[in-house]
Amino acid sequence: MVAASLADGTAERECVFELFARRLPDGRRYGVVAGTGRALDALRDFRFGDAELASLQGKLDDRMIAWLADYRFSGDIDGYPEGELYFPGSPILTVTGTFADAVVLETLFLSILNHDSAIASAAARMVTAAGNRPLIEMGSRRTHEEAAVASARAAYLAGFATTSNLEAGRRYGVPCAGTAAHAWILLHDDEESAFKAQVEALGTDTTLLVDTYDIRQGIDRAIAAAGPGLGAIRIDSGDLGVLAHQAREQLDSLGATGTKIVLSGDLDEYAIASLRAEPVDVYGVGTSVVTGSGAPTAGMVYKLVEVDGRPVAKRSSSKESRGGRKSALRRHKPTGTAVEEVVHLVGHTPDLGPDDRVLPVPLARGGEPVPGLPTLADARDRLRAALVSVPWEGLKLSRGEPAIPTVFPEA
Amino acid sequence: MVAASLADGTAERECVFELFARRLPDGRRYGVVAGTGRALDALRDFRFGDAELASLQGKLDDRMIAWLADYRFSGDIDGYPEGELYFPGSPILTVTGTFADAVVLETLFLSILNHDSAIASAAARMVTAAGNRPLIEMGSRRTHEEAAVASARAAYLAGFATTSNLEAGRRYGVPCAGTAAHAWILLHDDEESAFKAQVEALGTDTTLLVDTYDIRQGIDRAIAAAGPGLGAIRIDSGDLGVLAHQAREQLDSLGATGTKIVLSGDLDEYAIASLRAEPVDVYGVGTSVVTGSGAPTAGMVYKLVEVDGRPVAKRSSSKESRGGRKSALRRHKPTGTAVEEVVHLVGHTPDLGPDDRVLPVPLARGGEPVPGLPTLADARDRLRAALVSVPWEGLKLSRGEPAIPTVFPEA
Repeated sequence: MVAASLADGTAERECVFELFARRLPDGRRYGVVAGTGRALDALRDFRFGDAELASLQGKLDDRMIAWLADYRFSGDIDGYPEGELYFPGSPILTVTGTFADAVVLETLFLSILNHDSAIASAAARMVTAAGNRPLIEMGSRRTHEEAAVASARAAYLAGFATTSNLEAGRRYGVPCAGTAAHAWILLHDDEESAFKAQVEALGTDTTLLVDTYDIRQGIDRAIAAAGPGLGAIRIDSGDLGVLAHQAREQLDSLGATGTKIVLSGDLDEYAIASLRAEPVDVYGVGTSVVTGSGAPTAGMVYKLVEVDGRPVAKRSSSKESRGGRKSALRRHKPTGTAVEEVVHLVGHTPDLGPDDRVLPVPLARGGEPVPGLPTLADARDRLRAALVSVPWEGLKLSRGEPAIPTVFPEA
Repeated sequence: MVAASLADGTAERECVFELFARRLPDGRRYGVVAGTGRALDALRDFRFGDAELASLQGKLDDRMIAWLADYRFSGDIDGYPEGELYFPGSPILTVTGTFADAVVLETLFLSILNHDSAIASAAARMVTAAGNRPLIEMGSRRTHEEAAVASARAAYLAGFATTSNLEAGRRYGVPCAGTAAHAWILLHDDEESAFKAQVEALGTDTTLLVDTYDIRQGIDRAIAAAGPGLGAIRIDSGDLGVLAHQAREQLDSLGATGTKIVLSGDLDEYAIASLRAEPVDVYGVGTSVVTGSGAPTAGMVYKLVEVDGRPVAKRSSSKESRGGRKSALRRHKPTGTAVEEVVHLVGHTPDLGPDDRVLPVPLARGGEPVPGLPTLADARDRLRAALVSVPWEGLKLSRGEPAIPTVFPEA
């Protein structure tokens, strides 16, 4: 498309692309915007080097290759800050620039936002299900090796306490935590020596995995090795609710009243919710969070909505889009409860009530990220506040309609 | 675990880790091994640099950090070659080395194999559903930006013809193909000028997207712009079966009997199969293939099975494993149809019939990939041959049991 647009002169037309989701994943009540920070980082590094250009020789014409060699995005980007909620049609990212400059960003931006928002949206439901109990993200091994790092970031953004992914700690400052695996126990001649060695190396505050052989015996041995000041035990298999109860009683009877219970093993938001009444201190979540718990992609699209000031939109069949550059505001009751998402054409801003909030913010100007962009910590805070504003039905785990409707005043 | 094992001396124990899937994703009949080539590439680059080591200061002790700084795997790896089928319990990868050397590879190997095998396993079903019609992988935008490149490789391994991901072309030699998006049409003042510009820039062999406004009119305009020698049209929305029929009739009536029809738009293996009787020439598949069509991870695990020659296994609850270093062979009828997967302890090899096949091959020795490892083209050929050997029920798309049972003679 870029090559053909350079040839016919349309490459320079001033365009607006809009990144949005036509719908939420089946039955979900809200989506969580995540990945914007990564997208802006990736934009800075989005250059075509010698190796890339050489590989395109013969596939693309010389003019196109020369254009790629010089590529540097110089347009503007506006959008929802990370940690904001989104609903069907929310203009999550708006990219303004020449056609050629903006169209080559489609796959980059969609890949990042679709992945990270899918993970954060699933993770947020788990955080709600867990109440005040902390969650460890430990799913790296069940997703692509780089997606694992991004997943740890997205889960933390959504309220997870820690991750087992050290690279996410290095790259994004996500707090890291981990526990031993069954291999650690099996490596040793017996469970006692494994626990003893772990406590010696890592201190009594460590987490001992007690379900390799027999859980009741494992707990006895764990307290024998560490004393009643042991940090935590982890149980990774079996009927977790029953086991947590038994473990709590046993720990208390051994005087280990402060020893925490970490549960893991194919937990998702429903399993977490079902353990609400049990004496669990920490949840370890793997597969379900890194795969978006049934919705591994957010399904967002990147659509051309304006060319040289003229609104444009596909018109055939069911995949209709709304043309024109848009913004959005969220209306709230005086109590702070969100009522509706208003997506409107720029220049047709509806009256803003005292409890309403304009959603998009400037993210890049002239290709450069604007100063003072929200940090990952800001995004966590924003999401926490936004979820408080969701009507209570919208926080239910069961399938249903979006928590608030999206309205398009011009439609 | 490594830090504690360095402290208590168990780091040097000679270990065997086995990577396998306890079960196939719900209702799937077979899995496709993919990612082994990427895993061996990643092993070569698996080093801890200054930035990584600095970030671990204060989190790990000095001995551990020094060990990481010198890390280089020097053990052996055996496993199923890429493109081979696997079933529950198949020993897909066997890593032999000291505990410390082998345990740090867990997340790396599982991430790669779990991701790539999930994509290849879904893609293989789509290839079967498509019969002899070629498939284009075009899902990059719906998955993490690096997972997108790996997905394109895995889909190609499984029999897809091409990808829209140029980086997969550069890195792995996957043939690339693409078509224009609706943005290309909307960029222009009208559909005619968009088609005309595309044909001028890319030749009449290009693929014109005809469903932006009205498909019937779009096809008329496409042939008007390119002549009856137009390469292809693409339809991305609507009732694809009906539209393909109408498009074929219209194209033929315009003399464009050789113009192909490319269909895309949320296709998965079931939608592809349902279009078998329609005049479709090429399928474009996005979201469903890069998300594993409902099974985004293969769910493989990496378990310690032997320590200093002694078989070890977790014993509690439902997640039992079988201890001991294993190999596998697949038994076939004289007709070539697979009958069962035999997973046995090394040293207890069952009799090998004339139609049976030993499955694992040496992949690395002393930390170095063995010479002459299978290429991506070899993996494609291997899968094609392996699928021919699957009993016919095993190729059905419907949910069911694994195509062949796994038997464990010692159990």
